[in-house]
Amino acid sequence: MNNKDQKSWIEIKQGSDFPLYNLPFGVFKTAGSEPRVGVALGNNVIDLSVLAEQSFFDVQEISDPTVFYEDNLNAFIELGQPAWKKTREILIDLFSEGNDTIPGNEELRPRVVLGMDEVEMLLPVRVGDYTDFYSSLEHATNVGIMFRGKDNALMPNWKHLPVGYHGRSGSIVVSGTDVHRPMGQTKADDASSPSYGPSRLMDFELEMGFIVGKETALGEQVKATEAEDYIFGMVLFNDWSARDIQKWEYVPLGPFLGKNFGSTMSPWVVTMEALEPFRVDGPAQDPKPLPYLENVEKSHFDIALEVAVQPEGKNETVISRSNFKHLYWSIHQQLAHQTVNGCNVRVGDLYASGTISGPTEDSFGSMLELSWRGSKPIPLQDGDERKFLQDGDTVIMRGSCSNGDLHIGFGEAKGKLLPVKGQ
Amino acid sequence: MNNKDQKSWIEIKQGSDFPLYNLPFGVFKTAGSEPRVGVALGNNVIDLSVLAEQSFFDVQEISDPTVFYEDNLNAFIELGQPAWKKTREILIDLFSEGNDTIPGNEELRPRVVLGMDEVEMLLPVRVGDYTDFYSSLEHATNVGIMFRGKDNALMPNWKHLPVGYHGRSGSIVVSGTDVHRPMGQTKADDASSPSYGPSRLMDFELEMGFIVGKETALGEQVKATEAEDYIFGMVLFNDWSARDIQKWEYVPLGPFLGKNFGSTMSPWVVTMEALEPFRVDGPAQDPKPLPYLENVEKSHFDIALEVAVQPEGKNETVISRSNFKHLYWSIHQQLAHQTVNGCNVRVGDLYASGTISGPTEDSFGSMLELSWRGSKPIPLQDGDERKFLQDGDTVIMRGSCSNGDLHIGFGEAKGKLLPVKGQ
Repeated sequence: MNNKDQKSWIEIKQGSDFPLYNLPFGVFKTAGSEPRVGVALGNNVIDLSVLAEQSFFDVQEISDPTVFYEDNLNAFIELGQPAWKKTREILIDLFSEGNDTIPGNEELRPRVVLGMDEVEMLLPVRVGDYTDFYSSLEHATNVGIMFRGKDNALMPNWKHLPVGYHGRSGSIVVSGTDVHRPMGQTKADDASSPSYGPSRLMDFELEMGFIVGKETALGEQVKATEAEDYIFGMVLFNDWSARDIQKWEYVPLGPFLGKNFGSTMSPWVVTMEALEPFRVDGPAQDPKPLPYLENVEKSHFDIALEVAVQPEGKNETVISRSNFKHLYWSIHQQLAHQTVNGCNVRVGDLYASGTISGPTEDSFGSMLELSWRGSKPIPLQDGDERKFLQDGDTVIMRGSCSNGDLHIGFGEAKGKLLPVKGQ
Repeated sequence: MNNKDQKSWIEIKQGSDFPLYNLPFGVFKTAGSEPRVGVALGNNVIDLSVLAEQSFFDVQEISDPTVFYEDNLNAFIELGQPAWKKTREILIDLFSEGNDTIPGNEELRPRVVLGMDEVEMLLPVRVGDYTDFYSSLEHATNVGIMFRGKDNALMPNWKHLPVGYHGRSGSIVVSGTDVHRPMGQTKADDASSPSYGPSRLMDFELEMGFIVGKETALGEQVKATEAEDYIFGMVLFNDWSARDIQKWEYVPLGPFLGKNFGSTMSPWVVTMEALEPFRVDGPAQDPKPLPYLENVEKSHFDIALEVAVQPEGKNETVISRSNFKHLYWSIHQQLAHQTVNGCNVRVGDLYASGTISGPTEDSFGSMLELSWRGSKPIPLQDGDERKFLQDGDTVIMRGSCSNGDLHIGFGEAKGKLLPVKGQ
């Protein structure tokens, strides 16, 4: 079980994001059918509702196999960690080379194994609350320098706590959903009053997020050392941003309309179990955080990230390569901080990392930083260049982990920027 | 129908918040029974699930009367404005003096008419997203003076847009739920580094909120003039605040753990239809807002508000009397601003006003302002006084509208501050 080299009877190309070891969970539908739960395997989606119907999940740990007929993962996640592990175990067994249960059943096989191009992926979870952290030292420093100068770049609280704020859960959309350029109120530095119009400084933010797997009650705390008991898995996340709207509105209560017009989540949730081999140490933290933020060993994950921009009808250009391991604050510390005041968490809650910028200029996680506030155009293929996003641009984020022979990935979080709706 | 003077065959005391004209909606349960929908009438709760079972709601406008068996109002609200109006009409008819349908049925009457002391009220709606605005000029000015001095009190954006931010929907609780004092990170002005402990500056914020009644799609805007088509009703709201935690964390991304440990909502949602006779003009707005924020006539509501503090085992003292009409920005402008960038809204979303402070010192809506940051102790009955809240203090907010012979109210949003959990 869980053998990293285990081959499947399904043909999976070398370097696929979705070998038998990964098995990320998602929700999909096919033409004319109801949404249901699946896992990714190579270029296929495995329909867990059919496997449930065929009683493959009738085991003690999975107390209610009808969770695989739901239109989001929340009910499955609520069954708890033993159910997640057992589901994975059953799937690895069923799809391992040599297991003839499904390949030997000509009626069943095509109902269970669907091509990725036959299905439509849906938002994997029903997000209750969504918190967006700000946990990259490089990003916070870059933005601080641009907005407040080098001497005041980092706020006094930044190295003492994982700064975060509440985002909009209702406007989170699944990869592949197009997003409209927002209208809004902005004010030029030299203008005496604000004006109304389409945002002119459209940006992405390269983020990842974790999905809560176990709820807490109001008043309860989760220690950093316990955090992974409360985390189901991770996704890629694009926190689309309208920099001009954000700039005018955000003092003193934080970002609002500059962010909440849409955020893009990847469709496949990679479990913490699958990420286990890719643990690494995070950066040293100085000053030492307060004891409630004391971190676990190897609290970070080595997840290579990239962002590509593809203008309408043209080829994509990768404009940033970063890594999740660059973050200053770990997911454990984020969850410990979120709950230190007794704030409850619910299954399906999303905790996003904030923009993941690396130490080098080609690893910055937003166009704001890559173009240094529009002062350095970013070259694209075919002679194009960008300071900020243009209508018709598709932003594609990818993430993957490689470790010797083992490679797993997150697929994509992708979305096209459309013009203002109705224009 | 909808006659303001219409008497009921149920005895309702003069001055009750819940005459036949009001009919606010809520969710309740009785010992050993499932949650269901009710309306308040005098000191009674009318069980709409029993009325539905008895086919009183089998009319065209109410396409699915099983909505009254739900544990929140969302499904009922989703039926739309014609269903809300028709439900109200049916109830006014059934409970009007002279209608013998229920009083004449000895078996039915006790099942339909329950005493308020027999039921437990639950959170009336499943809140998707919760936005907290900051729409009182007096509150923003007071807080601004205390934190940034008189010259920088109001931010440059404040009079151009209804400043707001996303709050935590998962920690909203119904009136009567106790709230724990939060632990957290704070930093004294003269300390070199932060420390960890219970908040020492616990406060309430007197707010009201409106509940969205009709969803929009991503990319859509709601004009201020259309806003009331999207609003179901209003509630009282206590945005509990830990001022010391808030102060250290809130720059640059806004309030987070200083707020999200709990917020208290009143159990009865008063419909916009019931509030109609209490419309008034809001304050003049100068500078004139941008056209997308152009307001409707009589955009405000004359709702008298009060806050009482009751120390453990003692009598309450009313320490603030304010009014919803003092707000600078109206609910219409708030909704127009929330959606100007295409941010979608969902049925059950909560949009809170921000602290509602009036122009006089006895009308301020938080202890921060009433005690002017702790410099002026607030006298209570029996010789007590408070700068901020102490463990065991119950905070009670009330709101009501009076207009000649007509009086309607919101009941209470009430909660006791408990010590840190486990201490």
